[in-house]
Amino acid sequence: MDKYKVTHRLLRQSIKSLVNRQLTSNNPIYRFISALPLGNGGRNPQLYRSFGSLATKVERNPSFSSLNSDDLSYFKGVLGEKNVVQDEDRLETANIDWMHKYKGFSKLLLLPRNTEEVSKILEYCNSRRLAVVPQGGNTGLVGGSVPVFDEVIINVGSMNKIIAFDKVSGILVCEAGCILENLISYLDNQGFVMPLDLGAKGSCQIGGNVSTNAGGLRFVRYGSLHGNVLGLEAVLANGDVLDMLGTLRKDNTGYDLKHLFIGSEGSLGIVTKVSILTPPKLSSVNIAFLACEDYLSCQKLLSEAKRKLGEILSAFEFLDSHAMDLVLNHLEGVRNPLSSAVHNFYLLIETTGSDESYDKEKLEAFLLHSMESGLISDGVLAQDINQASSFWRIREGVPEALMRAGPVYKYDLSLPVEKMYSLVEEMRARLGQSANVVGYGHLGDGNLHLNVSAPRYDDTILAQIEPYVYEWTSKHRGSISAEHGLGLMKANEIFYSKSHGTVQLMASIKKLLDPNGILNPYKVLPSLPPLLQLSSWTLFLTVDILIIACG
Amino acid sequence: MDKYKVTHRLLRQSIKSLVNRQLTSNNPIYRFISALPLGNGGRNPQLYRSFGSLATKVERNPSFSSLNSDDLSYFKGVLGEKNVVQDEDRLETANIDWMHKYKGFSKLLLLPRNTEEVSKILEYCNSRRLAVVPQGGNTGLVGGSVPVFDEVIINVGSMNKIIAFDKVSGILVCEAGCILENLISYLDNQGFVMPLDLGAKGSCQIGGNVSTNAGGLRFVRYGSLHGNVLGLEAVLANGDVLDMLGTLRKDNTGYDLKHLFIGSEGSLGIVTKVSILTPPKLSSVNIAFLACEDYLSCQKLLSEAKRKLGEILSAFEFLDSHAMDLVLNHLEGVRNPLSSAVHNFYLLIETTGSDESYDKEKLEAFLLHSMESGLISDGVLAQDINQASSFWRIREGVPEALMRAGPVYKYDLSLPVEKMYSLVEEMRARLGQSANVVGYGHLGDGNLHLNVSAPRYDDTILAQIEPYVYEWTSKHRGSISAEHGLGLMKANEIFYSKSHGTVQLMASIKKLLDPNGILNPYKVLPSLPPLLQLSSWTLFLTVDILIIACG
Repeated sequence: MDKYKVTHRLLRQSIKSLVNRQLTSNNPIYRFISALPLGNGGRNPQLYRSFGSLATKVERNPSFSSLNSDDLSYFKGVLGEKNVVQDEDRLETANIDWMHKYKGFSKLLLLPRNTEEVSKILEYCNSRRLAVVPQGGNTGLVGGSVPVFDEVIINVGSMNKIIAFDKVSGILVCEAGCILENLISYLDNQGFVMPLDLGAKGSCQIGGNVSTNAGGLRFVRYGSLHGNVLGLEAVLANGDVLDMLGTLRKDNTGYDLKHLFIGSEGSLGIVTKVSILTPPKLSSVNIAFLACEDYLSCQKLLSEAKRKLGEILSAFEFLDSHAMDLVLNHLEGVRNPLSSAVHNFYLLIETTGSDESYDKEKLEAFLLHSMESGLISDGVLAQDINQASSFWRIREGVPEALMRAGPVYKYDLSLPVEKMYSLVEEMRARLGQSANVVGYGHLGDGNLHLNVSAPRYDDTILAQIEPYVYEWTSKHRGSISAEHGLGLMKANEIFYSKSHGTVQLMASIKKLLDPNGILNPYKVLPSLPPLLQLSSWTLFLTVDILIIACG
Repeated sequence: MDKYKVTHRLLRQSIKSLVNRQLTSNNPIYRFISALPLGNGGRNPQLYRSFGSLATKVERNPSFSSLNSDDLSYFKGVLGEKNVVQDEDRLETANIDWMHKYKGFSKLLLLPRNTEEVSKILEYCNSRRLAVVPQGGNTGLVGGSVPVFDEVIINVGSMNKIIAFDKVSGILVCEAGCILENLISYLDNQGFVMPLDLGAKGSCQIGGNVSTNAGGLRFVRYGSLHGNVLGLEAVLANGDVLDMLGTLRKDNTGYDLKHLFIGSEGSLGIVTKVSILTPPKLSSVNIAFLACEDYLSCQKLLSEAKRKLGEILSAFEFLDSHAMDLVLNHLEGVRNPLSSAVHNFYLLIETTGSDESYDKEKLEAFLLHSMESGLISDGVLAQDINQASSFWRIREGVPEALMRAGPVYKYDLSLPVEKMYSLVEEMRARLGQSANVVGYGHLGDGNLHLNVSAPRYDDTILAQIEPYVYEWTSKHRGSISAEHGLGLMKANEIFYSKSHGTVQLMASIKKLLDPNGILNPYKVLPSLPPLLQLSSWTLFLTVDILIIACG
């Protein structure tokens, strides 16, 4: 989740400088990047060949229509001239994801102002077989929110009203285009807290958050959006408005269909309103930075923390010594708050509660006990906000340090906690001296960021990592996408984490809700087996693991 | 949820004595109860006419086959002789729900021992168009777990193994037939707690709990099963086994289909395995019993409790003075722990945390502050387990007291907290002196138990209550079934809480997953408009509100 906390600006600069370096040097990656801007609506074959994974071929669905002037007239009639955007600069931004990794060729961005307009647009697009891509803040990491070809972009950012807030129950109802940060501020003023927070909060929209089942920084405490979203309104491909905007904690009247729209990445419908349960704000936050000498101790400490800190535990993060070395070597002004001795593992534990002095006392007692029992070899408790920030800086600085260190292969995996670090060790053994294998992540959530820092991008190294890492994850019933979703990037990798039967059922549900397949095509679900007849309008893509996941 | 906490034995006795009294006296209810056991496989029209709601006509689906000897041979071949039950006594029990309110006429109970057997049975039943009813502990309250006609009963109670438990993550994986109480005990020994607890725990099975999205006693703290169930395995109507048995907190790889099976009451598939996130056990429990003079103060106190007790709050229950009077007048040995003055509202607040002395201190400080600010007019904190039990006894005794007081119309509703008590007041105004309107329930969950205690069952009173109560609930976007599900009883009432569009989509999904409709027919979703052509095999049912909900 830390990937979000590094600011956009910082990441953009880093990525830009990295790409520039690669494109203007003899760096081997140059061989693999050949994104050729077409400027002709994508009518020629297009080859993205970057470093990582096998090539994924995506062909424009020939059953989709292309925009014509009648379409534009219809949209202008519904939305008004200014909400039918054809301006090239604005389209340029909307066609590219924020990492500048995926680029579509849409000629039209629509800005509906209410559910009825979304309904009219979709009904029309469906009848005309015009493909659409729902776009929120466009902060996704897997190419889910940008067009692949010429899909019409629909952005509900103008639908940004807070509809209701109940201070007794803490239930917020708002439109899908609300920026997450605005909701956080609004709730903060009311004395409540969004159960969701992430670094992209300044741009991302709640509708996009819900559609991608965003994880974020408060997951370990408040859990998934499947638990916190009480209701939603969604517009189906045919324009039907599905009113599931309940504001009840308990409702057992029929199938709970809202869950289909949480995490389906806009491929089943466009979320237009959301109701969400928000907990009251708690004032006391305490942070400790600790050292463990082996992974088993880290696991035991997690168990102990869950038990002893129980109701106030709000973060349990880890990094190994390789990650710490990178941070200390590549980030300015960062120092190890523990003794100069090298430790094998470092942990960041945060508590959030309602009583400053008691919570601190409780954490201190826990740490003392853990020290005495030998689970931790060293540790320090932040005494003020500056110390707290400096501890978080170490953990959150890992992705930045990795990028500064050079080429890096990044994987964002969910694994059973007890197995998690074995993958790092096995990978280290496989790669030997050829690369620096780094493990860190959200131990409390079972979310590992496995990163392989190499002197250069190299097919030999890649062949050592993939598909081994996916197969290993699959063998241990892990997830190849803990929180990013599948988007375009991993749609064809779904079988590593999901059985054929479930994927088949997903496809049937997609067919049921969106029979013409106009909603966010080419994403989430795997493409059909390669067609024998190739059209001239074919796009070859490879899944790029270079700068995919910054977490 | 209290309905569960009164033991089965107690309720059964009460119901039995109530029914006996009615059937052997001049009590007006006698006029309305005429359950005529047929003993001929249900081949004659059958009229249940009890008191409440409009008659619901259910016709046996003529496309379903009837059992023959080849079917029995097949089942015996798959399951072995002893797991194919035709014994009349055992079938009698399986055909009737525990309240003796719904009775089916099944001739066959199947007891598969593993997923493969469930798969073979369903594949066969689907190909033969034999309808089935999945049955767990048969503790439901809406007629969802018993056959309506001659459906084959499938009970996975023999599949009761704990498959795995991870003490680091607290993730339990088990078979669907595990009795809830056994899981609670198992976890207790491991130092963990099931996020689900309810009075029927001695009989109910986790597969049934998941299939009905059971609420229960720990809901306010741990939330819904949609948040706690991490994965499941389900067998579809055609025998396909859907492996969604993930054990990960984070997994964003495609649509999260498990949610379709949580709360669909066995109408989309039979749950065979479950993986569930369990929190660590906390040792400290404190309980306070308080008085408020108006409903606004109750609401404010809930807000305050959420904020000040925040992470340790585990129950926030309320009853009004009418409910308290009933308890004091009808239950032996129960006394008001507060002063003899009559208060308008009573609240029970429970905290659960990891530190006995601190938690108590915190609750005391909260109560003192609430007293000073005038939100509560009186209050007492339990000093030992006996006092704690006596406080719970008042709250949990309400349904029992109501049953002892005489005829009662019971409604289990979810409503926005700020609106909740208005319904009680409006109902009181509507009914005037003709009945005693009682409000109590789970304020923390927004779950109201509205009960109307009347001197006799009377169509005039009923007409004053229904459909007004459903319409009122619907108008305020409430739920007519907070936690019981719809089953047979409320399938046709679904539109009070769900839009036509969503119900239509539910029906489409049902059709997709179970095209022949063999899984738990006549339940959850509304029946089609009455068929013009009536078969001779028709069953008339009315929804009985007499002893439906004991909560």
